[in-house]
This record gives sequence, structure tokens and C-alpha cells, in this order.
Amino acid sequence: MKFNELDQLRERLDDVNLQLLELVNLRAAIVKQIGQIKNKQGMNRFDPVRERQMLDQLIKFNNGPFENSTIEHIFKEIFKAGLELIEDDDRKELLV
Amino acid sequence: MKFNELDQLRERLDDVNLQLLELVNLRAAIVKQIGQIKNKQGMNRFDPVRERQMLDQLIKFNNGPFENSTIEHIFKEIFKAGLELIEDDDRKELLV
Repeated sequence: MKFNELDQLRERLDDVNLQLLELVNLRAAIVKQIGQIKNKQGMNRFDPVRERQMLDQLIKFNNGPFENSTIEHIFKEIFKAGLELIEDDDRKELLV
Repeated sequence: MKFNELDQLRERLDDVNLQLLELVNLRAAIVKQIGQIKNKQGMNRFDPVRERQMLDQLIKFNNGPFENSTIEHIFKEIFKAGLELIEDDDRKELLV
């Protein structure tokens, strides 16, 4: 009986993983669009004030079970990956 | 005009951030439940085979823009945070 419960929870976890995958990539696509606009306007891609605002908003809405510090850590990794994606785009543009 | 476009994209990004927050915490809650069952059954909390299976599934369904290596990196951080959450639970239980 317990084994079924574990299997069911694992199925739910797989489902949540795929939803997270979709959202993380949707976020990356939006970040790419923002990067293109900023690029055209000669704006700086990295905006530490905006990043801090986003983290503060996430912490404000965080009801756990993850601690605020963990949420901050995970999202900083996601933000960094987004920034690297924009930098890759810029490099490709330079090569064209 | 362009400024509005940027603001709109930022609003979408904030919205996606909050959806991600909810899913990341939902995932953490499921991981906690799995940890409790494993604990009762005396099973090992960390299962590298299962972790590899989850990563393989994510890579299989990854349509970008993030590269597979980036997806793997982000999810490994999320998995690690989940595992730390279970370990915290265990420590609290020992203190009771």
C-alpha cells in the first residue's frame, strides 16, 4: 500500500518537473526578448536593481516549504542562466 | 513605444517568476512527503538512479531556449535544495 503512495508521489513529482521545465524555458524566451530590446536601445543587459526587486517580490510571496534563502539561491541560478543566454545571443550576432 | 514593450515583458516575467515560485514550493512539499515515507520504510533518501531518470526525462522534453546542460544545472540545484529540506526535517525529528 505504502509503495503505491510512493509511486503516486513520484508521478506527481515528474509532472511538476515538466511544468517547471516549461516555465523555466518560457522565462528564458521572455528574457531573450528583453535582451533584444535592450540591445537595440544600447541599454545595459544586467540590471542589479531590477534583479533585487524580483528577488524581493519572490521572498514577499514565499509561503514555503522552501526558506527565503533557498528561494533566493534557486532564482539567482535561473537569472544567471538567463543572462548567459543573452550573452550567447550577442556573441552570435557579432559573428554574423 | 519601445518602453511600453519592455514594461509589458517585465510584467510577464514577474508573473512567470511567481508561477515558478509556486511550482518550486509545490515540488518541495511533494519531496517532503516522499522523504517521510522513505524514512518510515528505512529507505535511503538520496537515489542517484532516480535523479538521473528525472534529468533524462527533462532533457528529452526540453525544447529550449535553454540548452540541455543549463536545464540540468538548474534542476540539480532544485533537487539539491529538496534533499536539504528532507535532511532538515530529519534533524528536527531527532531533536524531538
